[in-house]
Amino acid sequence: MNENNSAKTPRRSPAAKKETASPKKLPRTASAKSPSAKTKAASDAPKQKRTRQQSKEIRKTPVRIIPLGGLNEIGKNMTVFECSNDMFILDCGLAFPDADMPGVDIVIPDFTYVERNADKIRGIVITHGHEDHIGGLAYLLKKVNVPVYATRLTIGLIEGKLKEQGILNMVKLNIVEPRKTVKMGCMAVEFIKVNHSIPDAVGMAIHTPAGVIVHTGDFKVDYSPIDGNIIDIARFGELGSKGVLALMADSTNAERTGYTRSERTVGESFDRLFKKAEGKRIIIATFSSNIHRVQQIINAAERYGRKVAVFGRSMVNVINTAIELGYLEVPDNLIIDIEMMNRYENECIVLITTGSQGEPMSALTRMAMNEHRKVNITPMDFIIISATPIPGNEKYVTRVVNELMKSGAEVVYEAMYEVHVSGHACQEELKLMQALTKPKFFIPVHGEYKHLQKHADLAVQMGMARENVIIAEIGNVIETDGVSMKIVSQVPSGRILVDGLGVGDVGSIVLRDRKHLAQDGLIIIVIGIERAANEVVAGPDIISRGFVYVRESEELFVQAKNVLNNTLANCSYSEMREWNTLKGKLRDALSDYIYQKTKRSPMILPIIMEL
Amino acid sequence: MNENNSAKTPRRSPAAKKETASPKKLPRTASAKSPSAKTKAASDAPKQKRTRQQSKEIRKTPVRIIPLGGLNEIGKNMTVFECSNDMFILDCGLAFPDADMPGVDIVIPDFTYVERNADKIRGIVITHGHEDHIGGLAYLLKKVNVPVYATRLTIGLIEGKLKEQGILNMVKLNIVEPRKTVKMGCMAVEFIKVNHSIPDAVGMAIHTPAGVIVHTGDFKVDYSPIDGNIIDIARFGELGSKGVLALMADSTNAERTGYTRSERTVGESFDRLFKKAEGKRIIIATFSSNIHRVQQIINAAERYGRKVAVFGRSMVNVINTAIELGYLEVPDNLIIDIEMMNRYENECIVLITTGSQGEPMSALTRMAMNEHRKVNITPMDFIIISATPIPGNEKYVTRVVNELMKSGAEVVYEAMYEVHVSGHACQEELKLMQALTKPKFFIPVHGEYKHLQKHADLAVQMGMARENVIIAEIGNVIETDGVSMKIVSQVPSGRILVDGLGVGDVGSIVLRDRKHLAQDGLIIIVIGIERAANEVVAGPDIISRGFVYVRESEELFVQAKNVLNNTLANCSYSEMREWNTLKGKLRDALSDYIYQKTKRSPMILPIIMEL
Repeated sequence: MNENNSAKTPRRSPAAKKETASPKKLPRTASAKSPSAKTKAASDAPKQKRTRQQSKEIRKTPVRIIPLGGLNEIGKNMTVFECSNDMFILDCGLAFPDADMPGVDIVIPDFTYVERNADKIRGIVITHGHEDHIGGLAYLLKKVNVPVYATRLTIGLIEGKLKEQGILNMVKLNIVEPRKTVKMGCMAVEFIKVNHSIPDAVGMAIHTPAGVIVHTGDFKVDYSPIDGNIIDIARFGELGSKGVLALMADSTNAERTGYTRSERTVGESFDRLFKKAEGKRIIIATFSSNIHRVQQIINAAERYGRKVAVFGRSMVNVINTAIELGYLEVPDNLIIDIEMMNRYENECIVLITTGSQGEPMSALTRMAMNEHRKVNITPMDFIIISATPIPGNEKYVTRVVNELMKSGAEVVYEAMYEVHVSGHACQEELKLMQALTKPKFFIPVHGEYKHLQKHADLAVQMGMARENVIIAEIGNVIETDGVSMKIVSQVPSGRILVDGLGVGDVGSIVLRDRKHLAQDGLIIIVIGIERAANEVVAGPDIISRGFVYVRESEELFVQAKNVLNNTLANCSYSEMREWNTLKGKLRDALSDYIYQKTKRSPMILPIIMEL
Repeated sequence: MNENNSAKTPRRSPAAKKETASPKKLPRTASAKSPSAKTKAASDAPKQKRTRQQSKEIRKTPVRIIPLGGLNEIGKNMTVFECSNDMFILDCGLAFPDADMPGVDIVIPDFTYVERNADKIRGIVITHGHEDHIGGLAYLLKKVNVPVYATRLTIGLIEGKLKEQGILNMVKLNIVEPRKTVKMGCMAVEFIKVNHSIPDAVGMAIHTPAGVIVHTGDFKVDYSPIDGNIIDIARFGELGSKGVLALMADSTNAERTGYTRSERTVGESFDRLFKKAEGKRIIIATFSSNIHRVQQIINAAERYGRKVAVFGRSMVNVINTAIELGYLEVPDNLIIDIEMMNRYENECIVLITTGSQGEPMSALTRMAMNEHRKVNITPMDFIIISATPIPGNEKYVTRVVNELMKSGAEVVYEAMYEVHVSGHACQEELKLMQALTKPKFFIPVHGEYKHLQKHADLAVQMGMARENVIIAEIGNVIETDGVSMKIVSQVPSGRILVDGLGVGDVGSIVLRDRKHLAQDGLIIIVIGIERAANEVVAGPDIISRGFVYVRESEELFVQAKNVLNNTLANCSYSEMREWNTLKGKLRDALSDYIYQKTKRSPMILPIIMEL
């Protein structure tokens, strides 16, 4: 079942003809303050020139930008670009379920709009290989099989995912180098190198009839990246000089002032900590996809004469892919099989493991809980958690830290040392991107509302007119003809929940029941009624789960049965024939009694068997 | 049902005779490193003198310290002190449930040990009026009715809680001023003023035959507190000069370097923000118990000519109690009834509200979600969240911030401005407490393991011998005779879950079922069997909740019924008579089929009706 933002959908968005729609009618654009004196002074062109230009500007073939994920949320990033009869998709990620989605494995975008326009889709471009950008791809390709374009490592990681889903042979995957361009009908997508917490990340310059739209993807500016490839600021600047119609930029860290530190600073911390850990076994947990982080661990291990053992399925997979594709340089014989670990002294090994988010089934968590078959934590362990807890995971990480410490190990986590840096741009880097691309319009992307708002504020502070910034929602159709940009309509969008093999069969009703069952448990009433005689011939029986410890609440259940028997005794002949009424009466009577006695409201399920 | 750490309990802890128990046998004492050169140099007495003293020391009547909550956890603080035939209790708090306790309202300590020794309990002393120190009191007093001693505001807040539970008249409440002492049999408890995020907080000096034990309660050092009463460092110092046997000190902020800022700095931020909010309505969310924070809001409101309206039940209650007892100074007519709010312009009012943790039912959350009857958020609102999210609440707070911003309001939260300070001592204050009291032994309290460990490390850095620090667990019996201190035994301890009116009837089995139901939902199989003929006369019927959206999964259920019918058809006559076997066969068959088709494992409940 879908949970759509909008049920009704125009197959083609009606191209708005009027240039200046009233901002009040637009859903959630940035509030239209009049630009301050400062704003005007800071705008990049002298006022006179700008006015002349505007009056001359010619409306071009309109382009539509349709975000289907990643706005007002962290995760499941996906955007559709559309011009004339051509469409393409940028990224197709997943999100992880919130606490209010019990039992759900992952969340993917609603593909309805894409499915309806399958014949127009020219391809999918992917900015980088993180789950929130590729995790929905296998589900999408099962519905709309079009070519996928990405950089080499990203394609390598996608291959792994498609193999798992058994659709690798069905799909056409294309490797694209940075600075190369892919044609998408009347549009063309140019790949531009950016820095991020995974190698081979790119932003995109989308060349359209209406103008150039720059999408940064996830990015940061790292002047000393591990692989030596600095974000291609020259190309962003070139595009800016020629004229960028719109910028779509990563807002994840828009609340943070200053610059994000270089990945290299983590290497310096490792150096200090490896010295401190002398004589002990070192265990480092980090994100498997952070290959530069892994490279720095390997470099440190080599410098300090330690062997490396790798734990956790995703860590093993990613490291293998990265070595195979040449993204990870590992000296011969440095990585050892975990079965060989016991041949080395503590001070001669480093364990790299998953579990930096305290995930219950991860290798580090199992080590912490004394449940790992190969690793037993002792005071001779020096453990580094090289990550920050993602919001919502703080308690899991804390629990793992506590348990590791109880075993006597020394544990270093981010609060204390510089063992992690973010992969996203802070305010000064976001300003740099604005300054390089000098866009006419700005759409902050990738973030919750507070991040988008903050990012919009930054652009306005730099001189952009408030009305040229659009804070959009997923499903919005943002249209631009090169002169103006506005939200013109809405397509179906939302979240599709994946639970086991089921895609979309867990919706709001199922979730409501799961939450109800979790809160107060369940009471089942069973009665057998002989239809002919209209007579109760079996029961009422009461069965409960997740409600109270039954053995210690016998009296409550005896009384509950009395309540049901009294209710049945007071039912008229016609009520006994109308089973929905009868069920309602039994449910209400028991519910009242239980609430009065316990102040709880378990789910009550009356079942009548016809005999 | 109890969830005890230990099922078996000696009624009296056997007093260990040997002075130097092997540290290996002690459960989780601080790891016994040999003191470094630095450690020795920093110890407070010259080595020679100390050795001579130790040899002369005389063993005294032993005192036992038994923490029943607040160690290796945040919340439900409670400690029992015991000497000869006398016992008393220090604090009796609650904890809030984790995500793995669905449906649970609050968590309180296991009172078994106290109940078993009811005749020895001379009273309960309370350090301050926060829920994690008084929230379990009503439940305890229903079992063991003894006098309660606390400062004036704390007693006022306790009265409110006992009234709610209808036991106010049963209980003897006694107001104690700081520097006064309460006799507890052969022990005496002296109240000592400390600073904290609620007025009238105290630490305790417990005078026992074995020596003085200092318990800080929750504390910080504030040299410019709002009520002018600085923590009584002089008294802590005096006790230190005379000799403190053991210190038990608050570890909450032991990971944080430096000093906690003064509450007064928040007032300075309010001043700046009130200026910035000119022309707008101001809404401030904070903890209701932070009366000094409320005082500063009231002071700012007065300075800026604004009236104050109060929202949220607990905020109204606490403010009323505080005004009544003289802890809050409010100019006449400054606080207005919320019904009168509409008579004032936006720029003339301040709303004080609960909801700083994003609690779903709180006033601020309802305002954010457009569900508050009296308050509608607009761009003319300036909202200050004067609190830090407690770990686990981050997502709730973020959701509220996003929703408030979407309504166009300006929202200030801690990440951006200094609108909150902690109520707990940071490392420099913790060192000050060590330096003042100069304890022989140290037991870090109030914190998770990582906090206790860090606090222990601080004491060792200041010169305390590692073996004189005890990192204990709840239920440990820590015994000292003035010469040595060690863990000698264990009493029942753990967590009792409160759900509605039920205290302890939700245990591990009920929680396991609730979590299972939440993850994958439920399938019920109903069959009617005529006992005499041993024949299925009704069903099998299948009912599900929280599993899949049934209308879209008809085929699955048709097939599932076939699976059950086949299973029944293949049952032998004897299997049909043995209902537990029959149920097991049906459950297994359906479970296998469902898992194969969906990769999910709903709870399966076979019900057989006998006819």
